[in-house]
Amino acid sequence: MSVAKEVTNVEAQVIAAKKAAKRVGLLSTEEKNEALYILADTLEKNHQVILAANEKDLLVGREKGYEEAYLDRLALSKERIVDFAEGLRQVAKLKDPAGEILSSWTLENGLLVEKVTVPLGVIGMIYEARPNVTVDATGLALKSGNAIILKGGSSALSSNKAIVQVMQGALNKTKIPKEAVQFIASTDRVATQQLFTMKEHIDVLIPRGGASLISAVVNNATVPVLETGVGNCHLYIDVEADVEKALNILVNAKTDRPAVCNALETVIIHKKWLEKNSELLITAFKEHGISIHGDKVALSYIPNAVLANEADWANEYLSLELAVKTVDSLDEAIVHIETYGTKHSEAIVTENKATAKKFMSLVDASALYHNASTRFTDGGALGFGAEIGISTQKLHARGPMGLPALMTIKYMMSGNGQTR
Amino acid sequence: MSVAKEVTNVEAQVIAAKKAAKRVGLLSTEEKNEALYILADTLEKNHQVILAANEKDLLVGREKGYEEAYLDRLALSKERIVDFAEGLRQVAKLKDPAGEILSSWTLENGLLVEKVTVPLGVIGMIYEARPNVTVDATGLALKSGNAIILKGGSSALSSNKAIVQVMQGALNKTKIPKEAVQFIASTDRVATQQLFTMKEHIDVLIPRGGASLISAVVNNATVPVLETGVGNCHLYIDVEADVEKALNILVNAKTDRPAVCNALETVIIHKKWLEKNSELLITAFKEHGISIHGDKVALSYIPNAVLANEADWANEYLSLELAVKTVDSLDEAIVHIETYGTKHSEAIVTENKATAKKFMSLVDASALYHNASTRFTDGGALGFGAEIGISTQKLHARGPMGLPALMTIKYMMSGNGQTR
Repeated sequence: MSVAKEVTNVEAQVIAAKKAAKRVGLLSTEEKNEALYILADTLEKNHQVILAANEKDLLVGREKGYEEAYLDRLALSKERIVDFAEGLRQVAKLKDPAGEILSSWTLENGLLVEKVTVPLGVIGMIYEARPNVTVDATGLALKSGNAIILKGGSSALSSNKAIVQVMQGALNKTKIPKEAVQFIASTDRVATQQLFTMKEHIDVLIPRGGASLISAVVNNATVPVLETGVGNCHLYIDVEADVEKALNILVNAKTDRPAVCNALETVIIHKKWLEKNSELLITAFKEHGISIHGDKVALSYIPNAVLANEADWANEYLSLELAVKTVDSLDEAIVHIETYGTKHSEAIVTENKATAKKFMSLVDASALYHNASTRFTDGGALGFGAEIGISTQKLHARGPMGLPALMTIKYMMSGNGQTR
Repeated sequence: MSVAKEVTNVEAQVIAAKKAAKRVGLLSTEEKNEALYILADTLEKNHQVILAANEKDLLVGREKGYEEAYLDRLALSKERIVDFAEGLRQVAKLKDPAGEILSSWTLENGLLVEKVTVPLGVIGMIYEARPNVTVDATGLALKSGNAIILKGGSSALSSNKAIVQVMQGALNKTKIPKEAVQFIASTDRVATQQLFTMKEHIDVLIPRGGASLISAVVNNATVPVLETGVGNCHLYIDVEADVEKALNILVNAKTDRPAVCNALETVIIHKKWLEKNSELLITAFKEHGISIHGDKVALSYIPNAVLANEADWANEYLSLELAVKTVDSLDEAIVHIETYGTKHSEAIVTENKATAKKFMSLVDASALYHNASTRFTDGGALGFGAEIGISTQKLHARGPMGLPALMTIKYMMSGNGQTR
């Protein structure tokens, strides 16, 4: 494989992917699944090659002074590579999303109309850091009959390149042409920007990573985008909230994995509930190391809290910091969420079903929770089997995106000479 | 109603629509349907006001020297207004697309997950000429629980304004706030451009009209767009095509309504079929006034045809002109469609089922036809009940768009304290 050619000719890679996509789209479920099992086995067998490449990335990262937590996410191990392989086997077991007749009917003139799922074609994945996306996205794209263009972040360049080389080698033993998986090895921005405008050849771009990566894609791409990402998630603790449920959900949503998009960023508390339960709340904050930015009422109850400013309400802390807003009513809570929310995941704790119903009807978000943690907004947790990202847009796919998000439809009409 | 205020404050209108959308989204099916019947009755009763306004548009159009065919499309009559009203009553009879539980399941931990359809919110409709879009789009938006911003073309300004005023008056007698239907009365481009970037308040823009209008929206809007429009449609007459079916479908697809997007623009003919049936073909072209731009082989059979150039293959004639391409094989036909097609509607005439299947699998378009006319790509013709446009994109909605295209989904999770 000529890396030099890859670097200099993004367009040729994309055109090759488009051509390969047609062939992947015609394969049977069995042929696609067999290929995924071969990919999985080959990744496991070649774990040393991948680990060696990963060492290079870690070395560069340490030289550049990256934080230890960042390097942890970047670091691979034999176990993690086995997990990657297992993920591909899980995808192989999922139902094939292609060729499903969603509905069919016959017109009065005898024309048969069938609405059938078909692959989108070429998926462009632009992502940062974690090399697992390289494997996960490839598995989902191939299972759904698509080709994929992978443009990973520069900090995982060697790891991603090694993973793709191993997978392309494995594809030679399958019915899937290896051109269906393309890796853009260039680290400059020009290569990424080229992908933004290749509307003729790329059917969708999916950005995964930080807010700046996502907004760069959304604001500059003419290729359709499936936007993922930012989650300024709220939990509203109603006056009729059960104390234990409220505290458990609050702590879980904030602390289980603070750096992810479905983590809690602001808790909105009914003043009467706060008045009754402030002691327990303060204990929970202390125990779990949660630091508070609160409004004036919140500050009158919570020691060591700092006064929240306008920026705090909009902030995705992605840490153990938490904003606390107090309200007199459900309506006030909803207005706050409307003003500062990002339509990702919003939760209410209440024993009053009518209140819960009102919250879930009126709040505009991809995932609404009554008496459960926002942390469940995840393809794996919700039982989708696998996830290509969490959509924060309303068109095409909303919330966690599994295989169906990588499909479009065709109307297929069969007649015997019908005219209008 | 202060028209001056409308003209100067597009943003205020859009914000009012967003607020109203929440209220429309909470109405019951019965409340929405009742409103549509009242709108229909009121339009009929006020037909004279609308016709008077239409006269103004026609007068201006004649002064500006618009073509007679264009003025015909702009002209209203009592009968056409009755048709508009009947269209609203048809929409009232359609199934409510909101609140449908598309799927639901319970996780092992007891968390109930429901995937529910909900309205998008605010729909921005940017369109040209025909005032029927004003009524049709409003009916579909309200039935699906959305608010709508209408930005019609300047040539129908008075007609559209009168129609909206009548509808807004009627809404006062319904549960739908009249702010749910907003008409942008400004004729300058600034107002349209303001709509392009109001991502916080408008959920989707739907452009309907000529290619330049659509590309202006697609290329400049940061609000998500449902692209409609350009159809460079092909008919492939296979070597095994039935002669009668081929000629009927060819004539129907080309001549029934040449100016619409599902009309035929290029016929691709297998050389052996052409050799056998050229006499009948020439007769059909003559009889229906179809003028031909053909390749060299086509020219050797068809008298009075002119040699097609590269531009002809890509041209959406929207008239009785037709390009004729000759091929030696199905594969050659597919390559031609891939090169010049716009992924709208593509047809094959053949008695060979395997050939038809190959064509329909390999050609990437929203609507594929075996032995039927491309003219059926239309919400009404396919039995959708109503249509807001024909999508030429692959994400969210593809092909004719009925009520479901105006919906998004919410995941609603109900638990009793579940955490991860």
